[in-house]
Amino acid sequence: MMPRLYELTATQVLELLRNDTVTLETYARGLLDHVKETESVVKAWALLDPGHVIAQAQTLDQVPVGQRGPLHGLAIGVKDIMNSKGRIKLRDVVYHSHKLDMPTEYGSPIYRGYQPSSDSAAVAILRASGALIFGSCSFIRCKTTTTEFAVTNSGPDTTNPCDPKRTPGGSSCGSAAAVAALHVPLSLGSQTGGSLIRPASFTGVHALKPTFDTISTEGQKAIAPTFDTCGFFARCVEDLQMLADVFGIEVDEPARDILLEEMSIGLMKTPMWSTAGPGTIAAIEAATVILRGKGIKVEEVSFPPEMSDPEELERLQEVITQSETRVSFLREYRIDKDNLAPEIREIVENTARITHKEREQASDRHSHIRRIINDLAREYTVILTPSAEDEAPVGLGDMGRATFNTMWTGFHMPVVNIPAFVGANDMPVGVSLVGPRFRDQQLLKTSLALAELFRARAPRQLSDPSRKQVGNHGKG
Amino acid sequence: MMPRLYELTATQVLELLRNDTVTLETYARGLLDHVKETESVVKAWALLDPGHVIAQAQTLDQVPVGQRGPLHGLAIGVKDIMNSKGRIKLRDVVYHSHKLDMPTEYGSPIYRGYQPSSDSAAVAILRASGALIFGSCSFIRCKTTTTEFAVTNSGPDTTNPCDPKRTPGGSSCGSAAAVAALHVPLSLGSQTGGSLIRPASFTGVHALKPTFDTISTEGQKAIAPTFDTCGFFARCVEDLQMLADVFGIEVDEPARDILLEEMSIGLMKTPMWSTAGPGTIAAIEAATVILRGKGIKVEEVSFPPEMSDPEELERLQEVITQSETRVSFLREYRIDKDNLAPEIREIVENTARITHKEREQASDRHSHIRRIINDLAREYTVILTPSAEDEAPVGLGDMGRATFNTMWTGFHMPVVNIPAFVGANDMPVGVSLVGPRFRDQQLLKTSLALAELFRARAPRQLSDPSRKQVGNHGKG
Repeated sequence: MMPRLYELTATQVLELLRNDTVTLETYARGLLDHVKETESVVKAWALLDPGHVIAQAQTLDQVPVGQRGPLHGLAIGVKDIMNSKGRIKLRDVVYHSHKLDMPTEYGSPIYRGYQPSSDSAAVAILRASGALIFGSCSFIRCKTTTTEFAVTNSGPDTTNPCDPKRTPGGSSCGSAAAVAALHVPLSLGSQTGGSLIRPASFTGVHALKPTFDTISTEGQKAIAPTFDTCGFFARCVEDLQMLADVFGIEVDEPARDILLEEMSIGLMKTPMWSTAGPGTIAAIEAATVILRGKGIKVEEVSFPPEMSDPEELERLQEVITQSETRVSFLREYRIDKDNLAPEIREIVENTARITHKEREQASDRHSHIRRIINDLAREYTVILTPSAEDEAPVGLGDMGRATFNTMWTGFHMPVVNIPAFVGANDMPVGVSLVGPRFRDQQLLKTSLALAELFRARAPRQLSDPSRKQVGNHGKG
Repeated sequence: MMPRLYELTATQVLELLRNDTVTLETYARGLLDHVKETESVVKAWALLDPGHVIAQAQTLDQVPVGQRGPLHGLAIGVKDIMNSKGRIKLRDVVYHSHKLDMPTEYGSPIYRGYQPSSDSAAVAILRASGALIFGSCSFIRCKTTTTEFAVTNSGPDTTNPCDPKRTPGGSSCGSAAAVAALHVPLSLGSQTGGSLIRPASFTGVHALKPTFDTISTEGQKAIAPTFDTCGFFARCVEDLQMLADVFGIEVDEPARDILLEEMSIGLMKTPMWSTAGPGTIAAIEAATVILRGKGIKVEEVSFPPEMSDPEELERLQEVITQSETRVSFLREYRIDKDNLAPEIREIVENTARITHKEREQASDRHSHIRRIINDLAREYTVILTPSAEDEAPVGLGDMGRATFNTMWTGFHMPVVNIPAFVGANDMPVGVSLVGPRFRDQQLLKTSLALAELFRARAPRQLSDPSRKQVGNHGKG
């Protein structure tokens, strides 16, 4: 019986592809068949051309074994706000008849049929490493509310592979869903508020939001440039490490294996803790119990009192991101404002009347808080903190909130989501591990060790066969 | 006798074009004829297709008078690191046989023949305002030295329109030269170190480097994203104001005309003053005498002592810009490192061994200095400071240094170059007027008043007919 190739993680499949144990064409056809079976429910893809996938696979199969790139043949989904060459027009989409009458490119009718002539920096780097650029994943067009980048009702109807009645979270919904549903082992996403970590938590996959500006965002639609961060989804920490290596993410000193008994975990419930639901409270408690059970020191750490006002933090985030979004979308506003989402139009028109003085003060204050929290994080092996308020909400309209994410995005600190726990409805609940800026590789190494503990001791496994789900989770 | 249309500023020509006193086709042909006569010496253009210019002009001529945009028909040159649609391939260039065998697109053979499928944000906003996108201006491929973004010997051979034996300065050399040589009234450039203000000073034109992130840099090749700033060249302050309006640059309170006797000028010689040559020393002195002669208070302001070490400032700039450039060019390095300029290859390979810790500390320290200097600037109507070390050097190899510019770029403060003075060799020497962040429109309004004083009282006029020059300078 043939192995179910689509269930393999990137690390697992890579060896098979590198030495031609399996041809890439076979692997790609296996993925496409699985997509075909499940996509009508998941709706992860904005643009996916099977012919283009197979053509790339056949070309890559011709590369001599000794000359294959570090990601040879790995299928990667790309969030549909990142340019990729050779993208096809809407009418050529085969699997997505339900989407033919809605905007997809950049989530905007302004860009309908837009065919970029070059890859985004991240896509180009992946392609140069031998990756198979599988297709463009749906994303949710975002708006800024008082607290976060949240979601309009006009986004794609991507569902949560763990329960199609629930949201996968936004805005990188398709990228998270495609990995959770085993369509692809890896995908690119981006986070301005909580668009990587929250959908990873909701769909039960791993994600890395790296330190700010360790991966170029060139060729990715700009939203708020001092928050916009390119990152990725995978089904295990090893796969996140593989992508971090390909993107040249380095640390000053080699990442090292820290003995459990030498670890010191800073538990940061953050000023937003009052919004945590039962699933998140239980996940943080369970993680703490598991860690302490292994003799690891877990110490609760508060933000300094003068930085503990959740309303101040949210206001700073709002002022900065809205001011920057305003600049980023003037182009679309001037070209075709009638086709711009009303929420973005209002930001460009500055109906909230945010002044430059507020922007400047918010930026200076936020830089100050960033430095203080980063210094706090340096005192611990890693920070443990929530990934989302709770399980994914029911319904596709409420995409959840970025409450526990936007601060780390703005602080520029690297975050890994570990999908170790489940909530009251058996839906995934992740925890975030956070490191100081530019210590991404050490964060990943520590995450690998802690993820093993969580996987071994979590009260219920995501791979529990009693769970109804479209895809499968975890490595096995 | 027909007026020489190419001598008009944008503000002057706009009325003629708006009401069809002159058709745009006539204007465009006049510009193209003037380019044809002078381009063999100036070499301002990387890509210029007369047929494409005329076709755009004819299309714009069809727009009914009442529906014309705020920049209707104004010819604008675009620095060749900014995407513009419909750009033609190298082999189609008519006026540039001397450039056919050298890289032009992004200054790099990696992008030879690259045809973007969309405009950069800035180009799109200009096009939506009715501008005629005239062509792509040459620029100098830059490298980071200890002190600045300087120049390799492999750039284009653009000359200074005031003296073809001298450099126009880099990196926006073509954009500055095209405006100085009267090829176009307006052009877009960008500044990471001193790439707008220094060439403006060297070629005797006006320029605005706006507050950081008031114009989106999307679709412009990223170098160091926290320094990269889109700005523009013109032949008078009014034209800078017109573009600032089109780009939606606003201030919290309306800019106001300040009476001369109520002005207070902060003269900042900066920690770099020891590098100022005789032309710059004389220009700053002359400006001070003129201002004081009008009863305006001019007060010398020093940087705080602990921020007055020029080596520290230069090191901070170097660490931040090189670290960011490294991320920005990983894509090109991975795709085709053999065709990457050796200086950029070394930055990507981090041969200078800059650590993340240094990057982080430099970034925090620089943010702190930014706030302090900005607060200092708030105490004055405007800051007066050098635009360049001296006149443009002789020869095309030495492009001058960004000594007096990079700090303002990094401080994110708006800067206007006023080309009011001349040096020992009768070459232009500008002075910079600098405002606090986000007060660009007030800075422009004050610059308009001060430029009039300088123009009236400068010891020698740039329009002095005894000067040998290709183009003409100033409004008259």
